[in-house]
Formats: sequence, structure tokens, C-alpha cells
Amino acid sequence: MYTNRIENIINQIGINECSSSADSLNLNSPIGEVNVAKLKLAIDSPEAVEYKDVARKFIRDNPALFPREHYMGFDWAGQREHVLKQAKSIATNGVVRFADVSKNPTRIVNVIEIFSLYSNNVSTKLGVHYSLFGGTVQYLGTARHQKYMADADRLDILGSFSMTEIGHGSNVRGLETTATYDKQTKEFVINSPTPSSQKFWIGGAGLHGHFTTVFARLINDGKDHGIHAFVVPIRDRATHKVFDGITIKDCGHKMGLNGVDNGQLRFEHVRIPRENLLNKYSDVTEDGVYSSKLSTPIKNFAATMAPFILGRVLIVKGASGASKTCLSIAIRYSFVRKQFGPSLDNEQVLMTLSSQKRRLMVPLANTVIYDIYLHKIIQQLASGKPPASIHAHASGIKAIFSWDAVAAMQTCREACGGQGYRTANLISEFKADCDIICTYEGDNTVLMQQVAKYVLGLKSSDAPLKPFTLDGPAQQLYNLNNLLALFEAREALLASQVKAMIKNSKEKDAYYAFNAIIPFAVKLGHAHMQKEILSELIQFNNKQAVNPIPHLTLLYTLGKIEEDLGYLVSNGLLSPKLAQQLPTIILDLCDQVSKVSKQILESFDIPQNCLPIENLVEDLY
Amino acid sequence: MYTNRIENIINQIGINECSSSADSLNLNSPIGEVNVAKLKLAIDSPEAVEYKDVARKFIRDNPALFPREHYMGFDWAGQREHVLKQAKSIATNGVVRFADVSKNPTRIVNVIEIFSLYSNNVSTKLGVHYSLFGGTVQYLGTARHQKYMADADRLDILGSFSMTEIGHGSNVRGLETTATYDKQTKEFVINSPTPSSQKFWIGGAGLHGHFTTVFARLINDGKDHGIHAFVVPIRDRATHKVFDGITIKDCGHKMGLNGVDNGQLRFEHVRIPRENLLNKYSDVTEDGVYSSKLSTPIKNFAATMAPFILGRVLIVKGASGASKTCLSIAIRYSFVRKQFGPSLDNEQVLMTLSSQKRRLMVPLANTVIYDIYLHKIIQQLASGKPPASIHAHASGIKAIFSWDAVAAMQTCREACGGQGYRTANLISEFKADCDIICTYEGDNTVLMQQVAKYVLGLKSSDAPLKPFTLDGPAQQLYNLNNLLALFEAREALLASQVKAMIKNSKEKDAYYAFNAIIPFAVKLGHAHMQKEILSELIQFNNKQAVNPIPHLTLLYTLGKIEEDLGYLVSNGLLSPKLAQQLPTIILDLCDQVSKVSKQILESFDIPQNCLPIENLVEDLY
Repeated sequence: MYTNRIENIINQIGINECSSSADSLNLNSPIGEVNVAKLKLAIDSPEAVEYKDVARKFIRDNPALFPREHYMGFDWAGQREHVLKQAKSIATNGVVRFADVSKNPTRIVNVIEIFSLYSNNVSTKLGVHYSLFGGTVQYLGTARHQKYMADADRLDILGSFSMTEIGHGSNVRGLETTATYDKQTKEFVINSPTPSSQKFWIGGAGLHGHFTTVFARLINDGKDHGIHAFVVPIRDRATHKVFDGITIKDCGHKMGLNGVDNGQLRFEHVRIPRENLLNKYSDVTEDGVYSSKLSTPIKNFAATMAPFILGRVLIVKGASGASKTCLSIAIRYSFVRKQFGPSLDNEQVLMTLSSQKRRLMVPLANTVIYDIYLHKIIQQLASGKPPASIHAHASGIKAIFSWDAVAAMQTCREACGGQGYRTANLISEFKADCDIICTYEGDNTVLMQQVAKYVLGLKSSDAPLKPFTLDGPAQQLYNLNNLLALFEAREALLASQVKAMIKNSKEKDAYYAFNAIIPFAVKLGHAHMQKEILSELIQFNNKQAVNPIPHLTLLYTLGKIEEDLGYLVSNGLLSPKLAQQLPTIILDLCDQVSKVSKQILESFDIPQNCLPIENLVEDLY
Repeated sequence: MYTNRIENIINQIGINECSSSADSLNLNSPIGEVNVAKLKLAIDSPEAVEYKDVARKFIRDNPALFPREHYMGFDWAGQREHVLKQAKSIATNGVVRFADVSKNPTRIVNVIEIFSLYSNNVSTKLGVHYSLFGGTVQYLGTARHQKYMADADRLDILGSFSMTEIGHGSNVRGLETTATYDKQTKEFVINSPTPSSQKFWIGGAGLHGHFTTVFARLINDGKDHGIHAFVVPIRDRATHKVFDGITIKDCGHKMGLNGVDNGQLRFEHVRIPRENLLNKYSDVTEDGVYSSKLSTPIKNFAATMAPFILGRVLIVKGASGASKTCLSIAIRYSFVRKQFGPSLDNEQVLMTLSSQKRRLMVPLANTVIYDIYLHKIIQQLASGKPPASIHAHASGIKAIFSWDAVAAMQTCREACGGQGYRTANLISEFKADCDIICTYEGDNTVLMQQVAKYVLGLKSSDAPLKPFTLDGPAQQLYNLNNLLALFEAREALLASQVKAMIKNSKEKDAYYAFNAIIPFAVKLGHAHMQKEILSELIQFNNKQAVNPIPHLTLLYTLGKIEEDLGYLVSNGLLSPKLAQQLPTIILDLCDQVSKVSKQILESFDIPQNCLPIENLVEDLY
């Protein structure tokens, strides 16, 4: 089983040691000099760097709006008011625009990342208004909905997004809220028929919102046409009073993001004009005739979901910003905090410990790599004609980046010992704020199943399996093309295994057959995303070898291989000998990366007011 | 390398398929009927069940003291007062006693677990006073320190424990605080010579404490004798005023445990009577002669550290209680919350999803298994003559249980979706409170290195390696003795590899040589603890097969094997074929355990006022 098949691999994937530029990067050599400006440009992306720098400057120029103490000086109500103030100031200064959602996604997505270097509270407050409210209005609406644009742009009106109900979250198709057309008055009647149909977690609706886009079952002439979106005014702009028939309660205190006002909304036969239906795909005429450009309610539903691609990219940028700041905090602390040493009078900083390098450098690499992969998704979004794969890949990167980010922040917290536990040192705040990303806008486990279903639906997943084993000298593990071949072989093998499991299931119903093997589907989702990311990064590195990105690509990849080592070796995809050498190679690579980690942090260009004081304890003296 | 050597294994470990009772449990068969009362007795332990039931009854009988809303109705100051009130009430009602620390560790440790079903705030408040202050006074003091007992028992005086400094946490030997003997006045002078020498994180000292045990370098006649412990009064009992020369600041807001008043203490030449030295091992005579029963400062230091075994067991019980409540919340919710299904009108509860079973059942098994392993450590403590291994094993179980508990609580939070993020549903509170366990009373990474050093110091680690591969039919994985042999082989192999790495290190200094391979040492620590736990559980199951503990033992063990599958397979300890079958076996086992999971939760016997409402959303309707 474990025969030496290196020639085999080379033949299969058509590489040899010198043919490709990724090879010529020679990753089994020290990291060369790091040019921080070049690295910053590469990580920010040439398309986005100017927008990002405007946002950075805005944070730096407004220390009163973005104090180093973050929200610690405020009580709960005060925090919400301050977050609103931050969002309004960003909007009125034009750092981001309402129209960006449809016309310039590159700007909004990247600006959000920069504000999330400061806090996910402000980026979420902005994201809900611009991408969720703005996204539904701009992607699902038509000319008749343009009237909201100008006021929404300046945050003179604030929008929210009412999809989730108490009874239904990720399973959107199960929503209960109804929008019944009344031919007599030419209105839709929005109603919450049951306690569980109340809209819940509606960000921005608890206190500040004026409008919300409600997702409800469109009922016309007794027929249920499935989920459609409607603009519903909820508060009077002048008096800020909630309109009759609508009950809004606060969702209460949360693990994090307490600067965002989540509300619970109940509609009791609330009437809105017919025109408030966002009618890009489907409409009801004045005299009550329903029509849809799409052939089935399922297709209509799918079209209605399209704006969420932007939303998912946006929230994962929240994970990116938070990770960068937390990694900065933990790594900087590790370079100043002394603990243990060869003797009591010769204590060494934490970063000299191999364990500290091992636990901090891999998340640092992951953060950079995910960011660069996101450039591609954002380019696809901005092109206006994204490929079909974008659904799966935006879902996938949202899930894996948020999971890894939450784990990274936990690592940062522990890596700082007790100081990581102090609120003043901010890591716990970032972690608590970001935690929700794992389950909102699609629970990660559900999203990974979507990725798996996408892979299983690809024609390539039916191709016969080719024999594959990565074997040979340790040098093989330094070649990114080899590792890509390994990831391709894993994806193919897993897809065939998952298909076989479903086919051979004792469950007859397709739902139950899939249901019984979800962990394997999630694993397939990971395998696919890791392959996609590595493939994109190889292309990126081939175009421009910016130190230390090739080495970070390698560290990311080897880290992921180690996480799945059992599967890879027991299924014969990686030789035991190479597997045995992996931990040492990773540790060496972490050591190398740690030596340039300060420059990597510099390239993040994090405004100082995002960060606590450098050594985390100075305020105590 | 992967030859079929099952006969070999059987010969080596002297088992055959029928000889041992663990075999005869036949774990490749469905879980038999679960008797909740028997299960409760087994998990609580016969030695502790009565103490635990007293504590449970105390919580149930005092709903005003332990409201279902926990601390949500209180502001920060109010929370601290309420926690103090809870602790005092527990003390004055005799649920736990100050003398328990030395005379009845079984009671204090188990009572703490029950209160941590409610909150780690109250268990930590009690633990600091009883085990840290009480532990140092009782373990390190002598007859002359008995005077504190009666008042401390009723919490009329409150004690704290001043070890950590701003500049030194886990590296206790680096502490800077001095205690200089003044022969003239027969006093010790306690001093904080530098800003970094200020005591920090001193639980119970911020607001409420009257006494603290200070760890300081004993200086006598110009000579530094290393770290010793001293009782220092910090506040007047009558006026509650802080004594002259002592400055106490609050440590500020934290990620969790905000009901515990952590303080920062600075001593400026504070004089205490000579008798306040806790002099069990070392003393200074009135006329200034230092003597020690121990030959070197290092040994004195080690003796001074002894009370922390109890402390570590105690805080890991905090992780146990919190895990049990969080698992209860998430599993109960998974049995009522519907989401997805074969059709929209046939939605199924979350617990029908294989992914939900997979992520919740393994942590449930781990929690039960760790608890039962802890019985052994507690019996050793209670025996008064614990074996030398107890240092390493108490450190090890503290580290692995707290890491797994924090991960389990994260899983519980995500498994409940958005409802897991609502403060009212308590998971986030438990998680935040428990997080500190990973780094306090010995950072987990440091503790795991201690375990590794213990293993490397065992004579058995020098024995020549025996060839070992677990191979054969899937049935092999259902046999706990086989798995124990696998764990033994892994430990031996890892120990030899770590030794070789250190020996062959390019670093000449022993500190740096070890430093370079910490992640491997931590891995060895895990391997050793897993072997110890499985070994203890096999003995436990052989004595009494209480359903479903044998199956939980298997699930715990297979889960740990899966976490380390890459190492096991690539080093030839487990055959690729068995490894391939592992995920399916684990999933099947999770399915089986999920069917009795409600009974397991029942056996935890968690008072209702520890828990939020059952379906987590009822309060919203």
C-alpha cells in the first residue's frame, strides 16, 4: 500500500522539480527579506488598498470616536449609542456608500474589514444596514425602490433585515411570517401567525431602525408562493415611535456584540403598499395576479438568497479584522513578556518557547492566506458576473475562516495567560463579539454541507479515482504543487466515499441517508475549500512572490495536513514516513515565521487606537 | 511495517478474548438498560454522594440565593456582594468546612463541583478561601496558626492567596516580593520592591479579604532562602479598612468570573509578627537563625507547592460542574428544537442529525470519564499518603479537563445556534467563567510539560521498545484492553522520541534543548494522561459494569485515538485499516449514547435553578 510512488505523482500531476514557479520559490530555504510595504499591498490587495487606507486614516484621525479603551467607558445603552455614532460618522464622511453594495462591493467589504480591526460592533452595525438591508433593496428591488437610497446612504434612515424567526434560523424555507395580498386596498398584510414566527435577532431593529426587509410567505388569492422580501417601515422617522401593529422587544444581553441592538418583531396584520414587495424576480399586479420570472418557488427562493453572498463575505471580513488585532496583541506580548529561562536571572521572552511559536504562527499564516483567498471571491463579486461556484465558496470560506478565527482568538487569550483574561486587553471582547459568526447568516455546519453538496454535484466527482500516494524524501512536503495534488486526491477520494455511503445507506429517504453521514460531508467541505485555497494561493505566488507569503502558504497547508493526518495516512494518500516528519517541519517553519512575525503585523497596518497598550500591563504600574 | 500482529499483542499484554471482564462487557453490542440511580452513584462516587446531595439540596432549598437568572439581575458590584452572600450562607450552614482541606478533602472537592453546576463564581469564591488560603495555612502552618480556623470556618474572616505577581505567574520561582527578618523587632517586613512585584489576580482580596498568604523570598541576615509563605492581615475586621503600607487596587473587569473580587496588592515595608511565617518546613528563630527540614531551597519550594494538588483538583471540579450544566442545556435543547427534515411539514429535532450527536456525545462521554478518573486522585488525596505520581496526575487532569471543558462549552454554544449566544441561556456565562481555568494555578501548557518530565523521569521510560501494531478486524477497536496496550505503546514510543530529540539537540543548554521540543513534550503529557485514565476506567468497569459507563469509556478512548490518528498510524501503532473504520464506529457509538443521553443528564442530578428554561426560547413568547 505504501510503495514509493513519487515518479507516479510526478507523472500524474505533470510537474518536476524545476518546471513550475512555485517550485522555484524553494520553500525549503529561509524566508528572504520582508518588504513591509509590498506585503501590505499584497494582503490588502491593489484593488482595495486605497479604500482600506481611507478607513484606517478615519480611525486614526478620530481617536475620540475610536478610543483605545473601546467601549469600556460605556454602559450597555451608552455602548449602543456610541456604535450608532461611529456608524453615522463613517457614513456621513463617505467612507462607505449605500450604493457600494451593488456598484462597488470591493469598497464595502474591505472597509468593513478595517473597522473590524477596531470592533465587530461597528462593522456589524454598518454591515446590517448596508449589506443586509441595502443588499435586499438593491439586489431584489427595482426602480421603485430607489427612493430609499439617498437617505439610507447618509444613515438618515436605518435599515434592518428580518429573516430569522424564533422557530426558524438556518432553515429559511420553514419561515412562518405571512404577507397576504389584499386586492381591495392594494396592500400586503404582514402577519406573525404564531409565537414562534416572531422575527428574532433582527440587528439594528431593537432601537434604531426605521425600515426592515421582511422575509415572508407571499399569499395571493389563497395560494402560498413561498418566501419573498418586503420593505416594511417600523418606526416613524420624526418621532421614532414604533408603528401600530408592530411590537418590538429587545433580544436581551448577549455573549458579545452588545453594541448592536437586536430586536424581536411581531407583526399583527400590518399593512404595507403593494409596491413594497421587492419585485425584481416576482410581482403581484394591482388586481392580484402573481407572476414570477422564475419557474418554481424553489428557484424564486434561491434568487432571494443571492444577496447573502455579499453578506457572508462581509461577516467573514469581521473575523479577519478581529483575528489580525488579536494576533497582534498576543504576538507583541510574546515578544516582551518574560517567563522562565535557563536561570532565574536570565528569563526569556515567551516567543522563545517552541510551544508559543507553534500555537501563534499557524493562525497568523491562516489569517493571511484566507485574506488573500478572499480577494478572489471579492473580484468575482465585483465582476458582476460571478461564477456558479461563488455560492459554495463564499459559504465555505465564511465557515472555515470564522471557525479558525474563533479558535485563533482562544489561542491568543491563552497565550497571554491571565493578561488575556483582562477585559482591558481586548482579546476576550473580540472573541465574544466574533463568536456569533460561527452560527449566523448560515450555521457553519449547515454551510459546510452546502459546500459538500456542491462538490457532489460536480461532474468531476464522478471521474474514476486515480491511485495517489505522496511519498519520497521530506523535500516533497516543501513543494506546493505536490500538496495541491494531495488535496485533489483527498477531495476525489472523500467525494467517492460520501457518495458510496449515501448510496449504500440503509435509509431509503434521501434526507435521512444524507443526515446519517453529515460529519463526512463536512469533512468533504473542508477538503474542497482547502484545495481551492491552496490552488488560488499557488496562482497568487506564481504571479508575485512576496515574502513571506509563499512560506505562509506552506505553513497553512502543512497545518491543515496535520489536522487531517489520520485520514491522509490511513487512506494511503500520504506515506507514513512523510507524515512522521511533518510535525518537525511545521515547528521549524513556525520558528522561521516567528522571526518575521513583527513585519507581518506591521503589514496589517492596524491603527494604534484599535490596540491595547503594547505590553498589556503598563496600566497597572 | 503494518503486519497483522494481533497474536503478538495478545501475547504481550496477556489477554485473550474471554479472560478479562472488560472483554466480557462486549462493547460491540447495544447499550443495555440504564439505571439512573446506579449511574448517579457511580459518577458521584459512593464516598462523595452524600456530601454532593447536601449541596444539591442546599441549592434547591434556596432559590432566592440561587435564582434561575443567576447573576443577570445584578450590576457588577451587586454580583460580587451576592457571590459573597452565597459563600457565607454555604459556610454558615456547614455544607463545607475549613478543616475539610486537611481532614476531609473528599467533601470540599465534591461540594465545589456541585456549586459549580450553578456557577464558577461561587465555587471559586469558596475555593480561594478554603483551598488556597486554607490549604496554605493548614498544609504549611503549624499549631500556632490554628487560631485562624474557627473564624475562617464561618467566613467571619475571609482569606486570600498572594502568589502571582504582575511579572511572574507560572514561574513561581521568579517571584520578587521579599520578606526580610528584622531580629530587633522579631518581625518580617513584607515588601514589593518593584512595580512588577505587585501581587496580581489575588482572588478575594480586591474587596472582601481580611488575610492573605503571601509568597515571598525569605531574606534573613542578607541571605535569600527562596520562596516561603506568610500570613499577612490586609484589612481590619471591624472597620474593613486596608492596613497602612498596603495598597489594594481592583484588577478590573474580566472576561468572566466578575463575581470574584481580584485585587492588586502592593506592600511597602509591611511588618508582621515572626510567627506569621507558615513554618511547617522552615523557620526562623527569634534571634534570627534560619532552619529548614529540607536540604535545599528547591526542596523547600517544592514542599511549599504541595497544597496546590488540592487546588488543582478543586478548580478542575469547576470545569466538571460547568461542563455538565452546559451539556445539559445543549442536549436538552437538541431534543426539542426542530430544524430541517424530509419535508417542510415534517421537521425533525436537532438530535436526529448525525453531526449534532457527533459533536455533543463525545464531550458528554469525556466529562463522565474524567469525573470517574478524578475519584482516584481524590481518594489518593484523602488517604493522607498520596503516591509521588499525584503531582503529575493532578496537574495533568487539570490541564486536559479544562481544555476539553472549554472546547465542549464552545461546542454547546454553537450547537444551540443563536440561542447559545443569548446570555439568558447561560452557556456563554459558564464558558467565560471557566476559560481562566486553562491558565490559572499553572498554565496548562506548563503543567503538561510537568507531566512529560514526570514520565521522562520514570525508570520504565528507559525500557527498550517492544514492537506493537494494533491490527485485525474492527472488533479489535471495541476491546478496551487492546486500546490500553495501544496507549502504552504510544507513551513508550513518544517518551523515547522525546528523549532522543533532547539528546540529539543542537542546543547545548538543557533548558534550550527542552524548550525547542515543547509541543512534543505536551503530546507526551496527553499520551500519558490518556493511558492513566483508560487504565483506571478499565479497573473501574471491571469492578462494576454500570451502564453506559463502559460504552462511554470506549467513546472517550476512540475519540482520543481519532484526535491523534495521524501519529498512531504513521508510527505503525495502529493499522490503516482499523483507522479507516474508526470514524464510522465513533459515529455509531455517538448514536447509541444519544439514545441514553437524557438518562446520563438525569444522573447528573442538576438542580433546576442551575439551568435556564428547557427549550431556551419560552421566555420570548
